[in-house]
Amino acid sequence: MKAATVDRRCTILASHNVPTGRRDGADAVVERILATAAEQRADAEQHGHTVRAAGLVVPGTVDEARGVAVSAANLDWRDVPFRALLAERLGVPVAFGHDVRAGGLAEGILGAARGVPDYLFLAVGTGIAAAVVLDGRPYSGRGYAGEIGHIVVDPDGPLCGCGARGCLESIASAAAIAEHYATRTGERVDAATVRERVVAGDPDARAVWDRAIGALAGALAAYTSLLAPELVVLGGGLASAGDTLLVPLAAELDRRLRFQQRPQLVAAVLGDQAGALGAALLAWRAVEES
Amino acid sequence: MKAATVDRRCTILASHNVPTGRRDGADAVVERILATAAEQRADAEQHGHTVRAAGLVVPGTVDEARGVAVSAANLDWRDVPFRALLAERLGVPVAFGHDVRAGGLAEGILGAARGVPDYLFLAVGTGIAAAVVLDGRPYSGRGYAGEIGHIVVDPDGPLCGCGARGCLESIASAAAIAEHYATRTGERVDAATVRERVVAGDPDARAVWDRAIGALAGALAAYTSLLAPELVVLGGGLASAGDTLLVPLAAELDRRLRFQQRPQLVAAVLGDQAGALGAALLAWRAVEES
Repeated sequence: MKAATVDRRCTILASHNVPTGRRDGADAVVERILATAAEQRADAEQHGHTVRAAGLVVPGTVDEARGVAVSAANLDWRDVPFRALLAERLGVPVAFGHDVRAGGLAEGILGAARGVPDYLFLAVGTGIAAAVVLDGRPYSGRGYAGEIGHIVVDPDGPLCGCGARGCLESIASAAAIAEHYATRTGERVDAATVRERVVAGDPDARAVWDRAIGALAGALAAYTSLLAPELVVLGGGLASAGDTLLVPLAAELDRRLRFQQRPQLVAAVLGDQAGALGAALLAWRAVEES
Repeated sequence: MKAATVDRRCTILASHNVPTGRRDGADAVVERILATAAEQRADAEQHGHTVRAAGLVVPGTVDEARGVAVSAANLDWRDVPFRALLAERLGVPVAFGHDVRAGGLAEGILGAARGVPDYLFLAVGTGIAAAVVLDGRPYSGRGYAGEIGHIVVDPDGPLCGCGARGCLESIASAAAIAEHYATRTGERVDAATVRERVVAGDPDARAVWDRAIGALAGALAAYTSLLAPELVVLGGGLASAGDTLLVPLAAELDRRLRFQQRPQLVAAVLGDQAGALGAALLAWRAVEES
């Protein structure tokens, strides 16, 4: 859990990370959030600030309109009314949203997509998810939109966590890259190390990497045909790969597109603060609306 | 070219079809439109009506904001400023749009998607195109959105007109269905006849049809992961196939989706009037805005 105190200009004044037990259940998570919020608030007040609102963003299927976390693959909760639970206990307006959609919003207002109304924020980390940003707003589809990680790019591909075969996530996520490299070589290293070995000329690393690039290009080609984004912002852990990712990905996408216009591909700039900054943007909106 | 005179309630008062020479170029098309508009107008005035506005929708890449037809695969034009050309000559407000996006809008306001804010209008005819309707508005992506026909569903599939391999359109369009049946059997019949033979138990027709269903399901699964529509409205010539299309397509889509919610699949109800009614809706909006 990442917590930050953020001023009106979205400058982070203080932040800290708190471990979340994956199996603790929603009640324990809510208590942890409240304890963390109390600490951040006390610290902010000691420095002469007044906390005006809180923003919370979580992964999974999030219904922003109702303020409810519907479900999350890796977290043991279902239909948790986070916004109402927190608003009652915190006594300030509470904004509630989806981590990747909030991160995508932050990149649009503060980061790599400033001034661009139509873009895709593609977060490639342990999993793959996206914020579909249209006319400056992350489109939520009642909580279900943006699951680009589950576009099937290879029907004969590996089994994905969702139960389907050959989803983008099963080939191009950081976890999949590490897994495929381990299968080829017997050596278990993380995706960042695989990337280093690509640069160093390791042919196994190159084969795993190229397959991930091909899968990403396939999914982005489908996205481009449907929604014609001007820009794709690559975030999540894999974005730190920079040109090792962006250059071959642009070439692969060019190879797949015909009449469609290829979006510009750039790395995210807010890094692992995108989610917290997105939550802060949502919180400031809640202040304006209250 | 289909022309219609439509009242404020979107009832069609009169309509007629005019052949458009595909190779005539934009100037000849504009003259044909103007002549047709003059006839419709004279007829309407004879019946005591006053023409308040005109709506024109065309296929291809259409930039609604600028009122320009950017290009069309089957028509010999490029960057034609239709809205300005017609407004000058007709002397009434002119709305200009994209045929499939306008048809999708009409299905939402007058047809199969009434009351549903988020849906896909999928027009399967000679080609395949779509209107991506979000929050009640067809999303245009500066003219390039909705090209679902060029999602690659089988990388080893047939060569598509766009130059790529295995696009949805190259497998599931009416033209592709007729073509594949001819390749298998040596007999050239249209897609409607192939459908009749599916019902009659012809195994070649069944194989061609099933392949088209699988391709449509693959593209709709990708669309569902990205945008989570509540409804998919199937239009174009193939929509007349009814349950022969909808029942196996729903089953194939169910088979491909995991955590995603399967949209309802329904046939369009406006048939080949969807485009004209969409143009009329846009024209009435132009009246309101003028």
